[in-house]
Amino acid sequence: MTLNEITTRIEALRGKRLDMLGKDFLLTWEKSAEELEATFLVAEILRGMRGNAISPRLWDSGLAVSLFKDNSTRTRFSYASACNLLGLAVQDFEETKSQVAHGETVRETAAMISFLTEAIGIRDDIFLGEGDRFQREIAGALDDAVASGVLPSRPVVVNLQSDIDHPTQAMADALHLVNHFGGVDRLKGKKIAMTWAYSPSYGKPLSVPQGIIGLMTRFGMEVSLAYPEGYTLIPETVELARRQAMASGGSFTVSDSMEEAFKNADVVYPKSWAPYAVMQERTKLLRAGDDASLKELERSCLANNARYREWECNEKMMSLTREALYMHCLPADISGVSCAQGEVAASVFDRFRVPTYREAGYKPYVIAAMILLARVRRPTEALEALLRRKSPRFLEE
Amino acid sequence: MTLNEITTRIEALRGKRLDMLGKDFLLTWEKSAEELEATFLVAEILRGMRGNAISPRLWDSGLAVSLFKDNSTRTRFSYASACNLLGLAVQDFEETKSQVAHGETVRETAAMISFLTEAIGIRDDIFLGEGDRFQREIAGALDDAVASGVLPSRPVVVNLQSDIDHPTQAMADALHLVNHFGGVDRLKGKKIAMTWAYSPSYGKPLSVPQGIIGLMTRFGMEVSLAYPEGYTLIPETVELARRQAMASGGSFTVSDSMEEAFKNADVVYPKSWAPYAVMQERTKLLRAGDDASLKELERSCLANNARYREWECNEKMMSLTREALYMHCLPADISGVSCAQGEVAASVFDRFRVPTYREAGYKPYVIAAMILLARVRRPTEALEALLRRKSPRFLEE
Amino acid sequence: MTLNEITTRIEALRGKRLDMLGKDFLLTWEKSAEELEATFLVAEILRGMRGNAISPRLWDSGLAVSLFKDNSTRTRFSYASACNLLGLAVQDFEETKSQVAHGETVRETAAMISFLTEAIGIRDDIFLGEGDRFQREIAGALDDAVASGVLPSRPVVVNLQSDIDHPTQAMADALHLVNHFGGVDRLKGKKIAMTWAYSPSYGKPLSVPQGIIGLMTRFGMEVSLAYPEGYTLIPETVELARRQAMASGGSFTVSDSMEEAFKNADVVYPKSWAPYAVMQERTKLLRAGDDASLKELERSCLANNARYREWECNEKMMSLTREALYMHCLPADISGVSCAQGEVAASVFDRFRVPTYREAGYKPYVIAAMILLARVRRPTEALEALLRRKSPRFLEE
Repeated sequence: MTLNEITTRIEALRGKRLDMLGKDFLLTWEKSAEELEATFLVAEILRGMRGNAISPRLWDSGLAVSLFKDNSTRTRFSYASACNLLGLAVQDFEETKSQVAHGETVRETAAMISFLTEAIGIRDDIFLGEGDRFQREIAGALDDAVASGVLPSRPVVVNLQSDIDHPTQAMADALHLVNHFGGVDRLKGKKIAMTWAYSPSYGKPLSVPQGIIGLMTRFGMEVSLAYPEGYTLIPETVELARRQAMASGGSFTVSDSMEEAFKNADVVYPKSWAPYAVMQERTKLLRAGDDASLKELERSCLANNARYREWECNEKMMSLTREALYMHCLPADISGVSCAQGEVAASVFDRFRVPTYREAGYKPYVIAAMILLARVRRPTEALEALLRRKSPRFLEE
Repeated sequence: MTLNEITTRIEALRGKRLDMLGKDFLLTWEKSAEELEATFLVAEILRGMRGNAISPRLWDSGLAVSLFKDNSTRTRFSYASACNLLGLAVQDFEETKSQVAHGETVRETAAMISFLTEAIGIRDDIFLGEGDRFQREIAGALDDAVASGVLPSRPVVVNLQSDIDHPTQAMADALHLVNHFGGVDRLKGKKIAMTWAYSPSYGKPLSVPQGIIGLMTRFGMEVSLAYPEGYTLIPETVELARRQAMASGGSFTVSDSMEEAFKNADVVYPKSWAPYAVMQERTKLLRAGDDASLKELERSCLANNARYREWECNEKMMSLTREALYMHCLPADISGVSCAQGEVAASVFDRFRVPTYREAGYKPYVIAAMILLARVRRPTEALEALLRRKSPRFLEE
Repeated sequence: MTLNEITTRIEALRGKRLDMLGKDFLLTWEKSAEELEATFLVAEILRGMRGNAISPRLWDSGLAVSLFKDNSTRTRFSYASACNLLGLAVQDFEETKSQVAHGETVRETAAMISFLTEAIGIRDDIFLGEGDRFQREIAGALDDAVASGVLPSRPVVVNLQSDIDHPTQAMADALHLVNHFGGVDRLKGKKIAMTWAYSPSYGKPLSVPQGIIGLMTRFGMEVSLAYPEGYTLIPETVELARRQAMASGGSFTVSDSMEEAFKNADVVYPKSWAPYAVMQERTKLLRAGDDASLKELERSCLANNARYREWECNEKMMSLTREALYMHCLPADISGVSCAQGEVAASVFDRFRVPTYREAGYKPYVIAAMILLARVRRPTEALEALLRRKSPRFLEE
C-alpha cells in the first residue's frame, strides 16, 4: 500500500458517520454499515502504516487485558499484536475454566483490573447463553465505574468470541473478501455458502457460522446456509440474517444440501459445528457437572456426525461453484492430513492454504481498528497525526 | 488535579528528608514519617499526571519481575499497571506454590532474573515466618550481586504481601484516608476500628490487620483493634503498634468487643483473619504435608469461627460510629451476596462500594511511587523533568 | 565500558564479512568465525550502551514469541531481557509438554503467531532428534509464509536449547572466556576441560557439552572431553568437534579420565549429562508412553551414575589445573549444598560463584546480538545511529 493509498482511505473514513466512541465491539449487527466500513478502512490504514514502517503507536503506556475462558492461539496472538501495535501491554487475566462467576464478583473484578486499562478482550464461548451475557456484565460494570469516578477512562470491551458472535473473525473474513473482490461494493450479489462440514470432533461453537451469516447479509450478498437435519443455529441469529439480507438487497436461504449451497457460489465456508440443541443440552450438563451424561452426549453426537461424512469440501463439490474462494477460520480438519476424514479434501485445502493464511492475517489489524475507533475521539485527525509524526516502527526501515 | 496542584505537591516533596534510594519497601514501619508522606505525595503526583495526560514513563526499557506465591488479581494488576506506567515490562516468575526454596537457590535465582531488571514485586504470605524472610533473602542476594559487579544496578524489592505486612494495601488505604479527611495532618485524633469479622472461610492471612495497625498508629490516630478471644495477631506487630501510637500522640487499644471498637469510630475496617496460633499450626502441618490434620484444623477453625457470627458490620454496628467510613481490602464476604452470612451486611457494603473501589484505585500509584522513590536519585527534579517533558500518555489527549 | 571502547568495537564490527541477515541462529557451527566474533562484538556494544545509559531500542513495537517445551528460568529471563532491550514485547506460546506436533500444524502455527512478530525463541531439548528438527520446521514454514506474502517480514528463530546445541549458552560462555583472557585471539592454545560430573539426577540434556565442544574448537583451543565409559554424546557432534579443532589449529581429545582432562587445564566445565544411548532409549519410551520402562530406565541410569561419584570437581581436581577458571551453565549440583554429593565441591563453587554469575550475565546481550544481526541490514550503521540518537534508557541516568 502506498502512502497515497493510505491517504485515500483516510479521506474515505472522513466521510463516514460514526458513533463508535466509547462503544464496545460485541456483535457486528450492533454496528451500522458505515461503522463496519470504517473498521475495514482503519484496519487497512494501520496495515498500510506497518508496511510503510510508520508506527501507529497511540499510547505511551496502558494495559490491555486478555480474558480467555477457552483455549486460543491465533486470536490470542492477534489481540496481543494489535495491542502491542497501539502501544498497550497485554496482561492476562487467568480464570479457571469453570462456570463463570456473576454479580458482585464480576462488577468488582471489572473495576479492579481497569484502573490503567485501555482495552479488555474477552473470549467466552463455551456455555450457550453465557458468553455474550458475561461480556455485557463486564461492560455494564465498567460504565458504572466510570460514572462513579472510580475509573479515569472507559476501556473498550472487544468480543474475542462469544456464544453468539465472533466479530474479530467475521470482520477479518469480510475484509479478506473486500480485498479479494476489490471493494465493499463488489460484495453485492456475490454468493457465499456457509455450510456445515463433517468433522470427527464434537462441541465446536456456533459463533463462526452465526458470525458469518450475521455479517455477510449486511453487504447485499446471497448468503446460503446449509446443514444436515438438526444442525440448527441459535434461531434468533438465523432470523436476524433473514431480516438483514432483505434490508441490504441480498438474499438468505437455508437448505439441507451442501450441493445446493455450493452451486454457483463465489465463496464457500465449509465448517463443522455442533447442533444448537446439543449445545443447549451440553451447557445444562456442564452446569450440572454430569460427566456421565456428557460422555454419552458426545458419543451420540459423534455417531450422528458420522451419518454426514459426505459433507466434505472436495474437488467435486468445488466444481459446482463459480471457481469459488475457499475460506476457513483455521485450523481446518483436513481429510488424510489432520484426520482420516474431515471438513475439506487435502487438494482443496492445499490450493487455498495461502489465501486462508492471508485471511487470518487481517485479524490483528481488525482488532486494532476496533480498539482505535472506540477510544479515539477524532479517528481521521488521529490517523493523519500518525502519518505526519512518521515515527519509525523499526530503526532501520 | 490541576497542574498547579501537582506543582504544589512537588514543592511539598522537596521539603522531605528521604533516605529511600536503593532501599526496598518491605514494612511500612521501616520508613520514616516523612518517607511515608513522600510516598503519598509521589503517588498523587503520578495520578495527577495520568489525569493530565502526561506520561510519567521513566524507563525506555527494563523488566519488572512479579513473583506471586499466592493467588492475586487486584495486586497483580496494580503492580502490572504501576510498572507499565513507568515503562517497565512485567515478567512473571512462576514458582510452584510449594515450600519456598532457600539458600543457594534463592541467591542464584535472585541474580539470574535481575540482569536487566529494575523492580521485583513479591507476594509470599502463606507460611508464617517465611514471607518476610524470603523477601529479605532475595534482597540480600541482590545486594551481594551488585557489590560483586554481577548486576549493573540494584532492582528494588516491593513487598506485595508477606506474612507480616501488606504495605501496598495499607499505604493505598492510608492515602484513601488522607484524601477523605483532607490531608495527612487531619488523621490525627481520628478513630479507626480494625476489627475481626465473621467469614465462612478459614486461613485468611494476618498481614492486612497487621499492616493497618502498623501504619495507622503512625499518624496519631486512635487505633482500636478488636477480635474474639483467641484471634490474636503476631505479638510483635501488636507491641509495635502500641509503641508507635504512643510516639505519634495517638492511642492503641485492644478489646474483644466489636461494639466497643465501632463506638464513635470515624473509620471502620472489619475483616476476617485466622488466629495466630492456627496459622502457626497450619504452617507446621503444611510443612509436614499432613493433609489429614490440615483438614481437621480447618474443620475446627471454621467451627470456632461460627461462634462469632455476630461479628458482622451491619447497620446496627454502623450506627454506633460517627458516620464512619467503611473500608475493606476486597473482596469482602457480603452477607446474602457472596455468602449466607459474612463480614458485612449488603446494605452497608452497597453504600460504600464506590469508596472501597476508589480505595483500591490508589494501589497502582502507591506501587509506582515506591518504585520511583527507591530508584530515582533526585525525585523532585525527576518529576519536574517529567512535567516539563510533557510527553503525552495518549496521542489524542 | 567507555564510549570510546564502544566505538572501537563498532569499528571492529565494520571489518567483518557477514551473511547473517535473515538467517536463524540454530547451531554455532553454521556461523563463520567472523560471524561469531561479530556476535560477541554486538553483545559487548549493547552491554556498553546499557552501562552508558543509552537505549538500544530498535523497535517501537513488535512481538517476540517465546516457545519453551521445557522448563527454564535463566534462559527465559535472558530472552525476555534481550527482547525488551530492543523494544519487543514477549508473548508466550504455551504448548503442552507432550510430543511435538508436526506437519500441517507446525506450518500453520508458525504463520499464525508471526503476523507482527520479529523474533521466535524456542527451547525444545527433551526428545533426541526432535528439537533441532522442530526449529527447522518452524523456520521453513516462516520462509514459505514470507515467500507467499503471508508475512510482511521474516522473524528470526533463535535456538534457546535444542537436542543438539545450546548456542545462547555456549556463546555467553565463550564471551565470558573472551573477556577473561582478554580477546578472542587469546583463546588459542588455552586448554578447556569439558567433563562429565556426577549428579544424583538423570536425563540432563546433551546440548551443553555438545555446544561447548562444538564452539570452543573454533578458536584454536585445546578441547579435552572426558566422561566415564558409556556417557557418549551424539557421534556427529564429536566428529564435528574433531574436524573443527584441526581446522582452527587447536586440538580435540576424548578420554575417560577426569584427571587427564583437568591436567594443566586453563578452564574446566564439569557437568552431568545422560549417556546418548540412554537418551535414545528414553526418547523411544517417552514416545511410546511406557511409564514402567521409563521408571526402570531412570533407576538403572541412576545406579550407573553412582559408580562414578568420584567425578567431582573438588580442590584435588582443581590442583591439577593451571589455576583454571571454573565454568557452569547453572544451576550446579553442589556437594553438601544442593545434594549430598554432586558435580562440584562447595569450596570450589564458592570461589567461582561470582564468575559463574557473570558468565550467565552475558546471555541477555548475546541473545540481543543474535536478534539484531539477523534483523538489521547494516548493523554498524544502526549501532552508530543508536549512539548518535543517545535516547536515555532511564530518565535520570
